Amino acid sequence: MSKSFDDLLAQVAKCPTKKIAVACAQDDAVLEAVRAAKDRGIADAVLVGDEAKIRTIANVLKIDLSGYEIINEPDMLEAARTAVKLVHDGKADMYMKGLIDTKSFLRSVLDKEVGLRTDKTLSHVCVFEVKGMNHLLFLSDVAFVPYPDLETKANIIRNTVEIAHACGVACPKVAPLAAVEVVNPKMECTVDAAKLTEMNENGEITGCIIDGPLSLDLAIEPQAAFHKGTTDRKIVGDADVLLFPDIQAGNITYKCLVHTADCKNGNILTGTKAPVILTSRSDEFEVKVNSIALAAIVAENLK
Amino acid sequence: MSKSFDDLLAQVAKCPTKKIAVACAQDDAVLEAVRAAKDRGIADAVLVGDEAKIRTIANVLKIDLSGYEIINEPDMLEAARTAVKLVHDGKADMYMKGLIDTKSFLRSVLDKEVGLRTDKTLSHVCVFEVKGMNHLLFLSDVAFVPYPDLETKANIIRNTVEIAHACGVACPKVAPLAAVEVVNPKMECTVDAAKLTEMNENGEITGCIIDGPLSLDLAIEPQAAFHKGTTDRKIVGDADVLLFPDIQAGNITYKCLVHTADCKNGNILTGTKAPVILTSRSDEFEVKVNSIALAAIVAENLK
Repeated sequence: MSKSFDDLLAQVAKCPTKKIAVACAQDDAVLEAVRAAKDRGIADAVLVGDEAKIRTIANVLKIDLSGYEIINEPDMLEAARTAVKLVHDGKADMYMKGLIDTKSFLRSVLDKEVGLRTDKTLSHVCVFEVKGMNHLLFLSDVAFVPYPDLETKANIIRNTVEIAHACGVACPKVAPLAAVEVVNPKMECTVDAAKLTEMNENGEITGCIIDGPLSLDLAIEPQAAFHKGTTDRKIVGDADVLLFPDIQAGNITYKCLVHTADCKNGNILTGTKAPVILTSRSDEFEVKVNSIALAAIVAENLK
Repeated sequence: MSKSFDDLLAQVAKCPTKKIAVACAQDDAVLEAVRAAKDRGIADAVLVGDEAKIRTIANVLKIDLSGYEIINEPDMLEAARTAVKLVHDGKADMYMKGLIDTKSFLRSVLDKEVGLRTDKTLSHVCVFEVKGMNHLLFLSDVAFVPYPDLETKANIIRNTVEIAHACGVACPKVAPLAAVEVVNPKMECTVDAAKLTEMNENGEITGCIIDGPLSLDLAIEPQAAFHKGTTDRKIVGDADVLLFPDIQAGNITYKCLVHTADCKNGNILTGTKAPVILTSRSDEFEVKVNSIALAAIVAENLK
């Protein structure tokens, strides 16, 4: 069971080397992350995009391109189509966003012919290692699904649990979060949380233990559970997965962790045929590398 | 301008000593906080409640009660009524919850005859000192108002700005938060955020600078604003006040800070005639003392 990003990297090292297909690879930050992933034995890459620009950037960053396959396709949309098709056809294991706007990139992910669409809900999973916690935290959805209804929340949990399983967490504990830990009919997310707990008990959502609604302290802080005298819950500060009521709560909490806590993180888009790496320019270098490592582990597990 | 809780304590030390009226003071954690507030010169207290129990607890905790006025009123509701009336009548400066359930306590706050009701919206303000940030953060609403509409959000901002002013922040920057920094008609909180910004420009909300919608990174992290090339905003990582879209986002973020960041905090209920201290049993000792200090500063400013 991986309890940290070091554990995840050790887990990756045991798998056959994976391959990333990068859409529009002419991006300095992406090329640096891809180089680090290669150097650390996490994954190789096929660089699809404007070859001249890729070579110029590589020159500036002193990246040796001899170990990479490069497919010259200067057109942005065509480059994305070519890159995603490599993953679709099984010639690469994961798909990564380069210098292309998110909308066009997602359109390639969802392309019916060459894309990575499945019948699953697409959702975003963010994995955190927080100092002082002895296990990884899986957050969803903090970036992709705005206002999930009950069925979408169930699907988000299924996707996230699959990622937790890939990271070796055999039976993740899932906390559907709210401001409170009891059902309040005036707060729909607490009603949904109770229904998700029921769906887990009924066997409609499997491979995990769901207990909600939970406030964040009861979900992640064993001391808080102790102080409140909580004894009748399945989760007492030991949640692995945090399900957010909506993207506002998820995104603000995610950025709160990134900017105020001592932590590492990586994130992927899931519900797809193969993991999709969709880091943003504002993500730090290590976040990009961690995301590639996470994608590699998920790719290995999806096989 | 107070930039830390040490600054706030120094600010308190310069004011005439304030007095707390405690409802149902027979609570060990509350008595310990009240003693610390007295020892540190923050505030004196009138202890209203079951005198025998108060004396027993004081005995165990070795609290010298000779410096306190004690009003014996074993009945919980009567004790609250008596304590809140002291504040209502100007015999005490702030009102604090002891061993009484939140609902009954709030009922005493809102009592038409002896309570602290005004025509303002009641809202909760949480003040944070986060390591690495060079100013205080004022969060609202993380505990009291569930789903504020536009007008309620405007009132929450007015209340919170008043608290920031009391802490010496002359013109606080207010960030109405969302998952994104642009208006999206499908996300009501972004529409509200833009309207609040307009209301500020129109002079309907004064004493502050409002700029929203903002994602949390752009609100609190100057580096993020720099990375995203943000140059046309009034807030670039230097927000003082964080307005949350709803209580779920607010409460989860609040608990995220408390349990994962290196921080101090204190909080009060405001929109009342006098500040109300409504800490919970799970709050740490220092949070209770910080909250009393915050209330003392607000009480001084309300005079």
